[in-house]
Amino acid sequence: MSLVIVGSVAFDTIRTPWGDREKIVGGSGTYGSLAASYFTHPRVVGVVGRDFPRKTLAFLRSRGIDLAGLKVKAGKTFHWEGKYEDDPNRRTTLRTELNVFADFRPEVPASYRGSRIVYLANLNPEHHPFVLKQFRKPALVAMDTIRLWIDTKREALLEELGRVDIFFANDEEARLITGEMNLVSAGKALVALGPSLVLLKKGEHGALVFGRDFVFGVPAHPCEHVIDPTGAGDSFAGGFLGYLDKTRSLTGRDVHRAAVYGSVMASFAIEDFGIGRFLSLDRDLVEARFRQFRKMTAF
Amino acid sequence: MSLVIVGSVAFDTIRTPWGDREKIVGGSGTYGSLAASYFTHPRVVGVVGRDFPRKTLAFLRSRGIDLAGLKVKAGKTFHWEGKYEDDPNRRTTLRTELNVFADFRPEVPASYRGSRIVYLANLNPEHHPFVLKQFRKPALVAMDTIRLWIDTKREALLEELGRVDIFFANDEEARLITGEMNLVSAGKALVALGPSLVLLKKGEHGALVFGRDFVFGVPAHPCEHVIDPTGAGDSFAGGFLGYLDKTRSLTGRDVHRAAVYGSVMASFAIEDFGIGRFLSLDRDLVEARFRQFRKMTAF
Repeated sequence: MSLVIVGSVAFDTIRTPWGDREKIVGGSGTYGSLAASYFTHPRVVGVVGRDFPRKTLAFLRSRGIDLAGLKVKAGKTFHWEGKYEDDPNRRTTLRTELNVFADFRPEVPASYRGSRIVYLANLNPEHHPFVLKQFRKPALVAMDTIRLWIDTKREALLEELGRVDIFFANDEEARLITGEMNLVSAGKALVALGPSLVLLKKGEHGALVFGRDFVFGVPAHPCEHVIDPTGAGDSFAGGFLGYLDKTRSLTGRDVHRAAVYGSVMASFAIEDFGIGRFLSLDRDLVEARFRQFRKMTAF
Repeated sequence: MSLVIVGSVAFDTIRTPWGDREKIVGGSGTYGSLAASYFTHPRVVGVVGRDFPRKTLAFLRSRGIDLAGLKVKAGKTFHWEGKYEDDPNRRTTLRTELNVFADFRPEVPASYRGSRIVYLANLNPEHHPFVLKQFRKPALVAMDTIRLWIDTKREALLEELGRVDIFFANDEEARLITGEMNLVSAGKALVALGPSLVLLKKGEHGALVFGRDFVFGVPAHPCEHVIDPTGAGDSFAGGFLGYLDKTRSLTGRDVHRAAVYGSVMASFAIEDFGIGRFLSLDRDLVEARFRQFRKMTAF
């Protein structure tokens, strides 16, 4: 079992209609590895400043997360500030301080090089080749992206889509990349660009999973009070890849279950600010919600 | 088995970015009864003008639909004109000519009075009591509504919600009635207003089914080319109630299956303009799509 997550480990300042949080821990690498830690022992590649709390690093380690690839550099940790309105699917970025993340050239420790699954969470697609060539021969390469790279690095993004096996996108990103308004058409168009699996995340409406010859639907947990939507997508990816790493199988059935586990982990992430929900989340609660999903959808 | 649908049998003029149709057959009673006809022999209460095509009436009868309650009156048939943009979930009403529907006071034929399920599709809620008192003792009363009644007959609508067993609403209607933006909260708030079952229709995102102590999720068929979204909601209701009439059961499992059949019938309705898709749709195709839904969601 070996899943490497290359992503941001960061501070977030979150503004919502029901409360604010200043400089709490966030980042795609953090959410992704926490969600994956319920299934496997994920490895993280990232960078933080000396201001990053040691007790968070201790917590991540206590969850079985390997931080050999997390550099602590002189300087300040990446800091993002965002605001949510009533609709948790829409958010505005108020501030982005890259800090030590600005010249981050991900270096993969020797102990990670034989990893089976490599997940490039929100990296500049121009840096993918530099990261990937440090691995021996991963069985699966997965990527997510952000609006910024779609707008500014489109060509590199399309090139990387031609190389990866798994792509995570939310509805807005899928539409922007493909130009297709219909999400089913957008999902199929993304598969046509290269990845053999496309996970199209639809927030409160769950997710669609597109393969070469199938489409699956995955529900979202019926959540009445979204506290903080930050990290939902990263937690989805972490749960999905963590489960795939655990099962070592890519049958339709396992891919479908992996996506449900992704939805399960996302449903927990949004129940508290930042990574708060993970502090008290155990495997039994994860399994109980998985069974709830089954009950909610089986007919 | 006896399901009565009280609704409009009408002409629609449909404008979409990919084509227009002038004065084709539509209406909630038409779509609802056609969708239900794959499960039971629905009965229709409605009114048309003398301009309504006989061959459509013959087609409805050929599907086993009982038209004893459909009055043909001197004058013109109800005519609605609407326009869809790229997003099939949004539509604009361009024209509404009530014609013979204007002073429609639904009269229930004696042969319908012992019916088990009564569905009031899009009636002015102030007229519900007049209709319902003509039935002996229906086991289930279901209703849908339209934006117009939410805006203009709010009090009567809330009163009727306190009386019915089943309520169909789309996302916009559910939010407008309850004031809740979160759809799970809106669904629960609707149940709290009276109905023991609320079917919350979300277009391309499927539907949520709310009961006193459960929530089910129902997917939509992954459709790439919506030709004409008109009648999707009515077909959902027809399929749902038709299946419930057939099974004569209200277990969670049967309610869930009924909702999937509703989603199946809606998925066919949108594949052609007006009721076009029903002309060649047989029970085998319905069952095949039901199995597809199961395959797409089982994990």
